Amino acid sequence: MSKSLADSLLRIDAELVTEALCRFLCNEIYRAGYSRAVIGLSGGLDSSIVTLLCVRALGPENVFVVTMPYKTSSEATLLHSRKIIELTHVQAIDIPITAQVDAYFERFPEASQLRRANKCARERMSILYDQSAALQALVIGTSNKSEILLGYGTQFGDLASAVNPVGDLYKTQLRSLAEYLSVPREIIDKTPTADLWVGQTDEDELGFTYAEADRLLVLMVDYHWPRAELIAAGFAPEFIDRVEYLIRRNSYKRQMPKIAQLWWLTKRQDFPPRKQS
Amino acid sequence: MSKSLADSLLRIDAELVTEALCRFLCNEIYRAGYSRAVIGLSGGLDSSIVTLLCVRALGPENVFVVTMPYKTSSEATLLHSRKIIELTHVQAIDIPITAQVDAYFERFPEASQLRRANKCARERMSILYDQSAALQALVIGTSNKSEILLGYGTQFGDLASAVNPVGDLYKTQLRSLAEYLSVPREIIDKTPTADLWVGQTDEDELGFTYAEADRLLVLMVDYHWPRAELIAAGFAPEFIDRVEYLIRRNSYKRQMPKIAQLWWLTKRQDFPPRKQS
Repeated sequence: MSKSLADSLLRIDAELVTEALCRFLCNEIYRAGYSRAVIGLSGGLDSSIVTLLCVRALGPENVFVVTMPYKTSSEATLLHSRKIIELTHVQAIDIPITAQVDAYFERFPEASQLRRANKCARERMSILYDQSAALQALVIGTSNKSEILLGYGTQFGDLASAVNPVGDLYKTQLRSLAEYLSVPREIIDKTPTADLWVGQTDEDELGFTYAEADRLLVLMVDYHWPRAELIAAGFAPEFIDRVEYLIRRNSYKRQMPKIAQLWWLTKRQDFPPRKQS
Repeated sequence: MSKSLADSLLRIDAELVTEALCRFLCNEIYRAGYSRAVIGLSGGLDSSIVTLLCVRALGPENVFVVTMPYKTSSEATLLHSRKIIELTHVQAIDIPITAQVDAYFERFPEASQLRRANKCARERMSILYDQSAALQALVIGTSNKSEILLGYGTQFGDLASAVNPVGDLYKTQLRSLAEYLSVPREIIDKTPTADLWVGQTDEDELGFTYAEADRLLVLMVDYHWPRAELIAAGFAPEFIDRVEYLIRRNSYKRQMPKIAQLWWLTKRQDFPPRKQS
């Protein structure tokens, strides 16, 4: 059946993937003119894995992690971040964001939870890029393929980075990678959350689990299965619709700003004459 | 000679361009599911033009401008913004950014002017996106082609937007467009400045004027003139080098985060077998 087929397609060779990603990180960081990395560490699965990969690629002395708690950030966020820092001996900086974010929302007390969450995500990006300048370290992204496809992230917030080693790996695949990298058990097992507000979990907000979504996504996106075959394979039509809708609706988050193209009005076809060399 | 040739290539039909850009704005704003626009207004040439274009495309009742002064913002910035608001009757919101930005830099008193300037630019982006959510209005970008090519802007700051009507027009071309749109004289004539710190001007920072750069850029980028011909046409080799360097060095600002591609490791060529439909 499709579930076991999809599961088998999601399987990765964690050792080879780790090797490839470490090479990718070294290459891209050097190519950009840097030798150090800076990462926003939340204590979640994705940023923990990225921290471990950077440490493998560059050594702990070249990796900076920034923890950026807001007043509603959970105890687990702090605890798990600290655990990764102790484990890896990276350089750690703690920069709370409550003062800046609350200074803004004083004027907009009616702002929704979602607006506050997005402001926090963008404040964290802004701090990471400032620390990048201060530390001469490249900002490494932590968004995974499931989040990127579903658009579950803040544009110009957590989705922004210079290079991202895990953006072509589904959440399910990151779980296997985490096992291989010996990420602490409690981080692997905890419910994924952007910790945007108290009690928030990704899967509640999305309305399905990453395990379910990844099975559908791998067949739909990577192997181009048409809708009829996905239904025949046991996926509910409403679920397919919902996932397709999210991919389409959030496609703007995967694109640069759309610029009005004017060459057809401003460029002369006749002029200047091409010179002979 | 090359200067008059380049100048003639930079000439635009402002009426046709205006028409095309208004159509672009309507189409893109609707396609994104919006009917309103929000713009960060600095009182400079670019954001003034974009405001006027949006008013033509959508009517003043559907255009929101946000002024976001920092404590070092110049008097001209405020005066000229107010002038555009009075002229167009758009909805205006004033949101100073001093409290948020200073709350952050309290911890980093040694931070350079450039770090502070970039933090301001990203705070403004973050506010525009929050106001976008609050007002159900799409964020319209104001970066011009000269800035985008030279990388003279803050990534995930002023370079970030949903759609940008002026990104394919050089600064020189925007000056003609401004004449056509009757932008107030003092805005057209003032020295371009990102107002990043007191007395800052774009052209001092870049080391050349937009007029000079645009002549070179149009021949080099739009008409693909090789280096030897540019030199023969009278451009100094050092100037060509400098402009080429800036274009190359800042190309990352025109790209999405670089994601490690793993299909060659994770995708099976043999599996699953393609079904017959």
